[in-house]
Amino acid sequence: MITRMSSLFLRTLREDPADAEVPSHKLLVRAGYVRRVAPGGYAWLPLGLRVLRNIERVVREEMEAIGAQEIQFPALLPRDPYERSGRWTEYGPLLFRIKDRKGADFLLGPTHEELFALTVKGEYNSYKDFPVTLYQIQTKYRDEERPRAGILRTREFLMKDSYSFDIDDEGLSHSYQQHREAYIKIFERLGLRYVIVSAVSGAMGGSASEEFLAESETGEDTFVRCLESGFAANVEAITTTPPPEQSIEDKPAATVHLTPATPTIATLVDHLNGAGLGRTFTAADTLKNVLVKTRAPGSTEWELLAIGVPGDREVDAKRLEAALYPSEVALLEESDFLAHPFLVKGYIGPGALLANDVRYLVDPRVVRGTAWVTGADKADHHVVDLVCGRDFTPDGTIEAAEVRVGDPSPDGAGALVAARGIEIGHIFQLGRKFADVFGIDALGRDGKPVRITMGSYGVGVSRLVASIAEQSHDDRGLIWPRAMAPADVHVVVAGKDETLLAAGERLASELSAQGVEVILDDRKASPGVKFADAELIGIPTILVVGRGLANGVVEIKDRRSGERVEVAVDEVIAKLVETVRS
Amino acid sequence: MITRMSSLFLRTLREDPADAEVPSHKLLVRAGYVRRVAPGGYAWLPLGLRVLRNIERVVREEMEAIGAQEIQFPALLPRDPYERSGRWTEYGPLLFRIKDRKGADFLLGPTHEELFALTVKGEYNSYKDFPVTLYQIQTKYRDEERPRAGILRTREFLMKDSYSFDIDDEGLSHSYQQHREAYIKIFERLGLRYVIVSAVSGAMGGSASEEFLAESETGEDTFVRCLESGFAANVEAITTTPPPEQSIEDKPAATVHLTPATPTIATLVDHLNGAGLGRTFTAADTLKNVLVKTRAPGSTEWELLAIGVPGDREVDAKRLEAALYPSEVALLEESDFLAHPFLVKGYIGPGALLANDVRYLVDPRVVRGTAWVTGADKADHHVVDLVCGRDFTPDGTIEAAEVRVGDPSPDGAGALVAARGIEIGHIFQLGRKFADVFGIDALGRDGKPVRITMGSYGVGVSRLVASIAEQSHDDRGLIWPRAMAPADVHVVVAGKDETLLAAGERLASELSAQGVEVILDDRKASPGVKFADAELIGIPTILVVGRGLANGVVEIKDRRSGERVEVAVDEVIAKLVETVRS
Repeated sequence: MITRMSSLFLRTLREDPADAEVPSHKLLVRAGYVRRVAPGGYAWLPLGLRVLRNIERVVREEMEAIGAQEIQFPALLPRDPYERSGRWTEYGPLLFRIKDRKGADFLLGPTHEELFALTVKGEYNSYKDFPVTLYQIQTKYRDEERPRAGILRTREFLMKDSYSFDIDDEGLSHSYQQHREAYIKIFERLGLRYVIVSAVSGAMGGSASEEFLAESETGEDTFVRCLESGFAANVEAITTTPPPEQSIEDKPAATVHLTPATPTIATLVDHLNGAGLGRTFTAADTLKNVLVKTRAPGSTEWELLAIGVPGDREVDAKRLEAALYPSEVALLEESDFLAHPFLVKGYIGPGALLANDVRYLVDPRVVRGTAWVTGADKADHHVVDLVCGRDFTPDGTIEAAEVRVGDPSPDGAGALVAARGIEIGHIFQLGRKFADVFGIDALGRDGKPVRITMGSYGVGVSRLVASIAEQSHDDRGLIWPRAMAPADVHVVVAGKDETLLAAGERLASELSAQGVEVILDDRKASPGVKFADAELIGIPTILVVGRGLANGVVEIKDRRSGERVEVAVDEVIAKLVETVRS
Repeated sequence: MITRMSSLFLRTLREDPADAEVPSHKLLVRAGYVRRVAPGGYAWLPLGLRVLRNIERVVREEMEAIGAQEIQFPALLPRDPYERSGRWTEYGPLLFRIKDRKGADFLLGPTHEELFALTVKGEYNSYKDFPVTLYQIQTKYRDEERPRAGILRTREFLMKDSYSFDIDDEGLSHSYQQHREAYIKIFERLGLRYVIVSAVSGAMGGSASEEFLAESETGEDTFVRCLESGFAANVEAITTTPPPEQSIEDKPAATVHLTPATPTIATLVDHLNGAGLGRTFTAADTLKNVLVKTRAPGSTEWELLAIGVPGDREVDAKRLEAALYPSEVALLEESDFLAHPFLVKGYIGPGALLANDVRYLVDPRVVRGTAWVTGADKADHHVVDLVCGRDFTPDGTIEAAEVRVGDPSPDGAGALVAARGIEIGHIFQLGRKFADVFGIDALGRDGKPVRITMGSYGVGVSRLVASIAEQSHDDRGLIWPRAMAPADVHVVVAGKDETLLAAGERLASELSAQGVEVILDDRKASPGVKFADAELIGIPTILVVGRGLANGVVEIKDRRSGERVEVAVDEVIAKLVETVRS
């Protein structure tokens, strides 16, 4: 097919759009791929839609290759299934809720676990029917608080969501692994630099879960990685390697000290180091006790919970939430302190917590035999050398302390470094959560019902357009990998001479006849304008039909490397076909 | 590609679904093409999605052939452009309205005139940029009061909507004609029986407009046609051929008669025929005056309007609304009669109307010289021989009387007959309505701004699936025309013998290698079950691999004609490839 710039619905922009901060947003707007039409809503113009469709095709091919079957649900869904799964409420303001003319509640689907589960329940009922994997490539809606970065985070977006249904855990593991491999193929074909990070479940519930993150400095997702081993994970999924336990025999006895006006770790350490105790203390020697309250799902009662972490680390709210999921967690209010006078703010210690039956979980670094400076449950007093396993015994450990660059990798291979990425895929062993909600059983081989187990797997199809643009551009414009480029060759007629235009037309036709997708710049604009637009638009191969034509040569330019080669005009078609197909 | 029934996500049903009334709904559900998941919301299962995609491809190809460029807008749209065009209000309860987390108003797009218009305004500004035609194949939403007939009328549906932009009326006519021809090609390729009917604008405003209706007894749209000439139109678009004018010279004088208790036409005619007036009256000799009130767009004032129609015809509300568009029309309330005591219910005549400056429009049959029995503006009194042009002069004519079977066709070729259809396409010269709202001008050849003129064109893509099913089935199941069938050949392995299955597999592979799409029924089910499913699913060609294989023959069955042919197994691939490609 030949796309003529003279009639293509495209106007490139010289200036970055005022609301754009990240390169993909600037370039996709400037090059005329997308236009903003609503808060968090973008229109796909002709070239953008082609990129989107090309990515969709790659995703579809790899899903079909693992035997997934494509179906399609509406986006406008009734409340009931989401009410039963709890997600009507859990999604909070992220869910677009809508009433129809009769006042019935509907929502715009954020993902479709409920509907796929109910549909499988409706069609299948024997172990012989399973496994089955279904998918759709469909428009999703989330009422994002802050849509950002153009098409990276929008309120309406295109997603491939698939769901596996198995009769046992081994089946689920296999379906999960198949998706993992399919995703690797998809992202490799699209030429992405990405990492697979261990993730925790978030609002979905369940067990094994990994995210695919496109490496990008402008990404919203932070993760940590070990450069030595290649290990990568969300901070929520990082486990702390505990130090070895120590003997409690040879530790000095705990002593209480007057430490006036030391409600913070910094003031406490300063005070201790000036108190003539004969040693130097650091924040890491102190044990900070943070009080929160938690509530189990379905319960109306809040329960106190104390978290003990080394004083040199903060409690990371996301890690804490992930560790306590599915319970909710909230900070204490003034009224909570008033109701529990044994909590002496700034001086809370294990003593009062354990004496008053407050659940007390500590960082994994707080092992038997370690000695701590901590609150003495009395204003202006701390206790020194309070030994774990001798003077107090916590109720367990919790992964809630912040992860820091330089912390050891959980695999022991080296230190962790921080990185940023864009979530482009997520694979997830849901387990039986939805099957339990909807009672999805199959008749087993032995005639007894077997509860189905599910996996859920997503690829952000529209987001991939931006992720690739983010990784693949230079200061002159976009540089599309061939797999999703909106055309194969961009023919620039560099000059207004009729013979040049005729030659450009002829070469474009010959390429098109060979199945090569061509953009032909047949406009009356100057060569400079045309070159700049070609660089901005980012087709991988540019064919320049210019003055050299008089001597029988044209020029092939590689958009990525910038390399230019002069080629005899009667050899150029074969050469380009070879380049495009390689 | 080979689709194996043993793993296909498909369970056919023996019984019609309880909520289904029309054949397409029953069969598409029974054959496992669609499943209802919400009121007016259906999921597309694998075979249904293939049919939908095949239709989409035909539509896309014909749109590309007329140079239309594909883009895509979100479905979730901000209120403002629809507020400016008036459609936020005009659409009434048909529009899904939604608030985001900040309380801002959004809607789910019913069609996208506003967005396309604004986008063209944003990109283009010179007469050289035009004409341009843009389209999308995109999900639309309408909060239908009564979703019905499965996917025929849903609240979420797939539509191709395109919009042409021209700088003058000739350009718009050309764009309109191009779409008309493209639609003819689309519907011919899909094997539909359809008619093109003249339509009036409805809520869109504008001038020339035609609808494409798939002929179907279960269709919701009624239209009239002339079998002699092929003329077809919506009743709203029917114009009445007026009778010749008559001389007023030789008419008897009007006389007022006491006609007690004759508030209806029937009682009046009975009375007159018993009153010894020396002639026989029919309802067609009476002139019935119907009072309504109208309000111009943007006005807060209602204005009285009297409609005079021959007493043998009712006023057709849809024709009346169409004739008065864009003004609103409403029936009179009791308070209106009280405010205008000259309106004597049941006895209203032209006299009081014209004396009191009430606008008075009459049916085109009320021409100069015709004599009427009508109200005398006094209870229990009528006037006989009131002559138009002598005794009263109406303010004009209006096409508001009902159209009846047997009425003459406007083209004079014969009588009108009634028919029903399903609206599958609509082409429409919008004119400058949206360009005026948004101020869309192009700089003209002479340096002066030119206002753009628009056309809007729709094809109901998802509805086409049902329309075709409605026209193409028998009592055993669906019969897909080849262009959109979910596969080319349905291979039935009729028997459990391993050699049969192996032969079926081999034939399916050979067909697939030739680019033929195959469904292979490799299930352990009985031949009877498999035959019944093949008929229900409706692939145009069925290949039966059965007992004949021992003698080297297989059977090809044509789903539509039922014709069966035995073919030598080593000739069947060539034969099928020929059948599929013909």
